[in-house]
Amino acid sequence: MAAKREEMEFAGNTPNAVEAIAEKHLVQPWPVSETIGAEARGFIESGDGIYVTDAEGRRLIDGPAGMWCVNVGHRNKELSQVMYDQAMALSYNSPWYTTNEPSALLAERLAGHAPEGVGHVFYTTGGSSAVETALRFMQFYNNVRGRPEKKLIVSREGAYHGSTYLAASMNGRPRDHDWMDSAKEQVIKLSCPNPFRRPKGMTLEAYTDFLIEEFRATIEKVGADRIGAFIGEPVMASGGVIVPPPGYLPRMRALCAEHEILFIADEVVTAFGRLGHVFASKEVFGIEPDMITFAKGVTSGYFPLGGVMIRSKLFEDLRQSNHNDAMFAHGLTYSSHPIGCAVALKNLDILEDGLLAETRAISDHFQSRLKALEELPLVGEVRGLGLMAGIECVADHVSNNPLTLDLEVGKRIDRHCQALGLLVRPLINMCVMSPPLTINRDQIDTMAEILHKSIALTQDELVREGLWKG
Amino acid sequence: MAAKREEMEFAGNTPNAVEAIAEKHLVQPWPVSETIGAEARGFIESGDGIYVTDAEGRRLIDGPAGMWCVNVGHRNKELSQVMYDQAMALSYNSPWYTTNEPSALLAERLAGHAPEGVGHVFYTTGGSSAVETALRFMQFYNNVRGRPEKKLIVSREGAYHGSTYLAASMNGRPRDHDWMDSAKEQVIKLSCPNPFRRPKGMTLEAYTDFLIEEFRATIEKVGADRIGAFIGEPVMASGGVIVPPPGYLPRMRALCAEHEILFIADEVVTAFGRLGHVFASKEVFGIEPDMITFAKGVTSGYFPLGGVMIRSKLFEDLRQSNHNDAMFAHGLTYSSHPIGCAVALKNLDILEDGLLAETRAISDHFQSRLKALEELPLVGEVRGLGLMAGIECVADHVSNNPLTLDLEVGKRIDRHCQALGLLVRPLINMCVMSPPLTINRDQIDTMAEILHKSIALTQDELVREGLWKG
Repeated sequence: MAAKREEMEFAGNTPNAVEAIAEKHLVQPWPVSETIGAEARGFIESGDGIYVTDAEGRRLIDGPAGMWCVNVGHRNKELSQVMYDQAMALSYNSPWYTTNEPSALLAERLAGHAPEGVGHVFYTTGGSSAVETALRFMQFYNNVRGRPEKKLIVSREGAYHGSTYLAASMNGRPRDHDWMDSAKEQVIKLSCPNPFRRPKGMTLEAYTDFLIEEFRATIEKVGADRIGAFIGEPVMASGGVIVPPPGYLPRMRALCAEHEILFIADEVVTAFGRLGHVFASKEVFGIEPDMITFAKGVTSGYFPLGGVMIRSKLFEDLRQSNHNDAMFAHGLTYSSHPIGCAVALKNLDILEDGLLAETRAISDHFQSRLKALEELPLVGEVRGLGLMAGIECVADHVSNNPLTLDLEVGKRIDRHCQALGLLVRPLINMCVMSPPLTINRDQIDTMAEILHKSIALTQDELVREGLWKG
Repeated sequence: MAAKREEMEFAGNTPNAVEAIAEKHLVQPWPVSETIGAEARGFIESGDGIYVTDAEGRRLIDGPAGMWCVNVGHRNKELSQVMYDQAMALSYNSPWYTTNEPSALLAERLAGHAPEGVGHVFYTTGGSSAVETALRFMQFYNNVRGRPEKKLIVSREGAYHGSTYLAASMNGRPRDHDWMDSAKEQVIKLSCPNPFRRPKGMTLEAYTDFLIEEFRATIEKVGADRIGAFIGEPVMASGGVIVPPPGYLPRMRALCAEHEILFIADEVVTAFGRLGHVFASKEVFGIEPDMITFAKGVTSGYFPLGGVMIRSKLFEDLRQSNHNDAMFAHGLTYSSHPIGCAVALKNLDILEDGLLAETRAISDHFQSRLKALEELPLVGEVRGLGLMAGIECVADHVSNNPLTLDLEVGKRIDRHCQALGLLVRPLINMCVMSPPLTINRDQIDTMAEILHKSIALTQDELVREGLWKG
């Protein structure tokens, strides 16, 4: 790959030189004060299939598929070609006044995959702006419907919904709000539906009852006439790949329907193949949301595109209101971008032409190979669904008590994994795996073996440093 | 072009068929209740240089350059090629853990164009997320600096800063907030610095004094210890191409410096060549902001990329605070996107290799040709700078009183212009012109002639309908 890069015009910089420039001029996501504005992160040279190549020329399996997004893999020639073709046909048109072909065709195909009646789409540039659109639409809808008090939003501890002010207000992970402002007066947080952390001795059934009762009691206390929406990831992703207990999502959805609370499924991670389907809400969880937000996998990360699917009935309600000129004053320069939508159409072709089916077929192997890591004392639980999994490390295997956050065991495991050929996504005391959907059985085996070795090495290291008893 | 499109896989749909699909499934920016979710906008088939081709195969000059963004023009082969090349080299890497070459190199080049000391960049996916980043950074900065009360944001009537909740709260145009919620408790709005609408008989100098005194009195009343930032477009763009009076920006900037209020120049429209420079703050207006937000022209609209340049000293302040672990919990999946940054690097090459100089050379011709439209009675003022201009229509040429908004004269002019070969951006009673920077003298003449004819036809039409006396 190095030779190839040399041919490119902006090549000729060594990884060290690039990192030095980044350290001087670049600010990347989630920095801490100690190093903000003076930090370089590991250089990535190139990508190919399920692999990326780092500064030392090492080929690493891309365990998190970038950021849960490179679903069809790196260096996909079809996606690259369609970007060129569409850029040469129509690179941009203003969605304020005009329409283009790719955005309309994509809208029709997405509507065909969404639950019946969820037939409209508003395009954005990613997950944060998709969530902002869903929430601002709920506010607009209730203003026009004459119930401006019905605006509170119910979210959950452990959630992640984005990095713009209102979307970020829905987040509920450790450290999300320590030093940041949020619209907390607009949000109600319910418990994280994490079966692994349910009270000791409680059955899964009783735990689901507890979670549903919490929501029901909240509605009763606050008043359904003050709650506009519930937002939730069907599987909490960066909160630690948390799969809710059986029955939880349908019962939450039913409570929302009963109280005219719009149910927003945030499928930024779970859609576009991660769980083997274009959208997972109905096919995997049996729920039919009012809105579904998406991003990431829709273009396999090649182009910043996101959006929100919206139940068509909500637009009928608005058209039949007495406020014809009420304006939904919302839209992005890059809404309905022709190149992004053309990439998404091609990406959808690839998913439909076999990759979804292959993902469904290989998921059991992926989950069982990772599940076997639970034999290691440091591992409390491995959980997941489809091609996403979380490995949670614990203080010991008997109590399953959490480790102190400061150990950052995820980073230690990542360091060993990288030396052995695997990039993981460390999440404090967890590792998150969501490889490109093009991964095969042998590659999954390799991934699991590297993880096993690396976690064992991390255990040894922690014991040696006196930080963990095992 | 039609034949070429046939070869593309998702072709074969007539413009009518595409519009019918859009009407059924697509929601585009700024819809009104009457037609929301059941509306098609004019189909655009393709683009080439300064032209786009519509459903009837008509070639139209792209008057607004899409949405103030297609700066190097449509169908640019170099930008299209670099998208393909970078996608085949590295299409995505997670900025949470890794760095890529294009984002570092672009950061260095942008720092070279920004005012001295404004040496860092945080990348986003467009203008809204750039503004959110600037405002959330201000909140974080003041939290870490131990002054959590210093968070109010000063904006202005007529402003436009984006479509996410917090960014949109800064907007101040008619209809922006009629049916939308906003964080109004966090915002203070000053008067729009519009010389055309200054009190009759007031000199420009006195008007500037009045505006500055308004800001000074606001600071005194509210308290500098409660105001975190001022945000302003150097030239208000979608508020109607409003160029502030001489001296206004430097004096506003000085007041901010005096009271430790961060000055955010929103250059989403004015940067990347629109005013003949990469950034306009210092070169055109003589100000050195603390943050500069950008988007649009940075990739000529080919790729959703935005960002905020940040004064490096602010990071030093944070690193020297006593809160090492304070986390700026902010970042987007597509921050530092390698393809977007590669496109921006190539776009910057094109600007530096002559296009900036050509823009500066041709701007006088553009402004004077449009200024001549003031001879038409319907036109109250033509104003602008560089290659951006606004044409404001009025009730009559003597009083210059505003027209009622309902006439939507802009849309009438646009209709005539399109029949004659020019797409304009209607803004209620204004037309906004910001063509691709590659436009030449003859094409500017054609544009001005079409505008002249179309405004004259609109006048006739309004008189005929008894809506305007002239």
